[in-house]
Amino acid sequence: MKKSYKTMTRPELEAEIVSLRAAYDAKVKKGLKLDMSRGKPSTEQLDLSNEMLTVLHGDDCKTETGFDVRNYGVLAGIPEARRFIAELCSVSPENVIMGGSASLEVMYNALMRAMIFGVDKESEPWAKQGKIKFLCPAPGYDRHFGMCQDLCIEMINIKMTDEGPDMDEVERLVASDSSVKGMWCVPKYSNPDGVTYSEKTVRRIADLDHAAPDFRVFWDNAYIVHDLTDTPDELINIFDLTRGTKNEDMVYMFVSTAKISFPGAGISAFISSEKNVAEALSHINFQTISYDKINQLRHVRYFGNADGVREHMKRHASILYPKFKIVLDALDSELGGLDVAEWRRPNGGYFVSFYAMPGTAKRIGELCKGAGVTLTSVGATYPYGVDPDDSNIRIAPSYPTTEELKAAMEVFVICVRLAAAEKLLSK
Amino acid sequence: MKKSYKTMTRPELEAEIVSLRAAYDAKVKKGLKLDMSRGKPSTEQLDLSNEMLTVLHGDDCKTETGFDVRNYGVLAGIPEARRFIAELCSVSPENVIMGGSASLEVMYNALMRAMIFGVDKESEPWAKQGKIKFLCPAPGYDRHFGMCQDLCIEMINIKMTDEGPDMDEVERLVASDSSVKGMWCVPKYSNPDGVTYSEKTVRRIADLDHAAPDFRVFWDNAYIVHDLTDTPDELINIFDLTRGTKNEDMVYMFVSTAKISFPGAGISAFISSEKNVAEALSHINFQTISYDKINQLRHVRYFGNADGVREHMKRHASILYPKFKIVLDALDSELGGLDVAEWRRPNGGYFVSFYAMPGTAKRIGELCKGAGVTLTSVGATYPYGVDPDDSNIRIAPSYPTTEELKAAMEVFVICVRLAAAEKLLSK
Repeated sequence: MKKSYKTMTRPELEAEIVSLRAAYDAKVKKGLKLDMSRGKPSTEQLDLSNEMLTVLHGDDCKTETGFDVRNYGVLAGIPEARRFIAELCSVSPENVIMGGSASLEVMYNALMRAMIFGVDKESEPWAKQGKIKFLCPAPGYDRHFGMCQDLCIEMINIKMTDEGPDMDEVERLVASDSSVKGMWCVPKYSNPDGVTYSEKTVRRIADLDHAAPDFRVFWDNAYIVHDLTDTPDELINIFDLTRGTKNEDMVYMFVSTAKISFPGAGISAFISSEKNVAEALSHINFQTISYDKINQLRHVRYFGNADGVREHMKRHASILYPKFKIVLDALDSELGGLDVAEWRRPNGGYFVSFYAMPGTAKRIGELCKGAGVTLTSVGATYPYGVDPDDSNIRIAPSYPTTEELKAAMEVFVICVRLAAAEKLLSK
Repeated sequence: MKKSYKTMTRPELEAEIVSLRAAYDAKVKKGLKLDMSRGKPSTEQLDLSNEMLTVLHGDDCKTETGFDVRNYGVLAGIPEARRFIAELCSVSPENVIMGGSASLEVMYNALMRAMIFGVDKESEPWAKQGKIKFLCPAPGYDRHFGMCQDLCIEMINIKMTDEGPDMDEVERLVASDSSVKGMWCVPKYSNPDGVTYSEKTVRRIADLDHAAPDFRVFWDNAYIVHDLTDTPDELINIFDLTRGTKNEDMVYMFVSTAKISFPGAGISAFISSEKNVAEALSHINFQTISYDKINQLRHVRYFGNADGVREHMKRHASILYPKFKIVLDALDSELGGLDVAEWRRPNGGYFVSFYAMPGTAKRIGELCKGAGVTLTSVGATYPYGVDPDDSNIRIAPSYPTTEELKAAMEVFVICVRLAAAEKLLSK
């Protein structure tokens, strides 16, 4: 039975630090170079989709409607790709616009359109409405926050709970402040917490009373089929709740095959109400003639349908699950009972969200760096890069090999303990 | 020897119309369905690049720097792709940012950035400067004009000459009006005229005195290697003229492989000064992690280098040239000497620009449509879709087969003559 650091006497903490320092120095001497910073698939995972690269041949490049994908045209995407995405997301193909090779760009472009044109013909451009704000459930995805920062959209932190964002706070702010124009959500296996929004949370979002008529929920369904275990989370379909209501046009959903096929070279989509789809196309029509339809057909030919994707994702999970287990086992065995940290046990997604003793996350990042282990920049999971508790660390187990991961976690747990002991002693 | 319509008596014109009407009605009866509307490559041209589709394999996806293109990263594009584009455009790789699958999007995004952020850190966003204007050499590319219209940028027609835009007018407007923020140029084989800007014109553009410090030239080098004949036009490199001058940051160049490999599924690039490249990347960094690097490597592997592209373009020319010849032969033999039209004889590009007797282009479009021949919407080659002379028609010979093209041109020349005769008789 391990002793909680919080119950240690000062001499005990001092002894612990001496011992941890020695262990840490030994790790430093090894000259490691390990990266747990980004949610990148491993080479082994990329190899799963290699056959897609050559699945399409020049003599077989026609869509089901007889259109040659090698030529101009078909703005919203080829019919089989829209249907493929629609099936994956349980929506109608009419609600799907195929985008470029990554969903990040689709989100950014949706933001840009709202800034320049407004969300519909009745609305003022966001750029002409003075200071506007987005609600940012945090910890969250750093690139969502980056977009807001780039566009000078003020970000408001919303606490994450086990069921998703703190909805009391969300409801209060959205109903009372008409400068709140949007809200970021990663509703399934949220980045980094791995939390799937509960049915109650999704229903409360779908029912939101919003002071701003042009309020939009940015529903980044990045991990829609990214289950890790045999007990996957279930996310209810928000469009089933908004259809036919006052909030029919409130949700923009984004998906991509980034972590299904190839990151940055997949297919992506914007999914929304028919009104929003028409509005978006009325501008996309000037931005492009169509996105890459060859890649659309390549994906559909390779995966076939949503079931094909789900089978494929099992192969990803069989590579990813052991890595998550390495992380969780190391945390459980080395930090369990010490009262120095908490961590989540996700059923999917790409991260283990780790909460160090408040005020120690930055120190842990420094220590890890000193021993050759790169973490996601501490703080990056919060708007403006500032974690008010200096606590959250996003662990990304996917890219390193299992051996590298074991070595990295050995370093990580030492750093967590050392930082905690130092902190307690400094009080 | 044919008789000029302009010298015909009224009875002669009446007789001509009766005869043309009969010929036209005979064509209508054939129930043709022919399309000369868009600059789309033919299936035979698309087939030239088929091997590219399978050139890349999963076990050979590393860049020259050892980076796996199947994964996230490398914002500005893989080194060999930047060098490939740089060689093609006679610039340095540092001046190249790889974009998505088409250059139209790269242009639109550059416009959006200028609208939202301004062209650099010192400038006001265009969207905050009230009414802004673009100079639009016309006839020009309808999709350039469409972007301006979408973004509510006022367009000013600039007459096209044999050497490019009317530079007296350009210099006058750019120097005197600080709301003139940009100018569209297709400097080589301009769309639709097929005119390559003369050295003098390019020098005058490079030297422009602009009242707006944030004035930018949108240099759409769409037909950079798209020669049709053994006597190709030469365009001088505008960056050689602006480098180190007050106008170092004035030019945004755009290229793509749309009509080299596959339209809408090629690779594209933004090319500009180092300052502009850094400025663009400072925002693109939030828009995407990178554009499709697999497609970048696919292109580089297939073409090898700029010489590989030039060889490839000869194969395109061998398919395209006979089609241009059909168009020009039909115009020469059926309309030569009649004083009813003029037309250009391009050495490259995708169009034959045709100038009907003023006031007859719309009528020709209607007549052609009635006989089953689709032309580019008459007027589309001018801002707001309005050709002040109702004269220019953009003939796109690439997509139809040679047989279809012959049939279409037979209809076209009848319609041109009929419209001219009607017009003269109505005076």
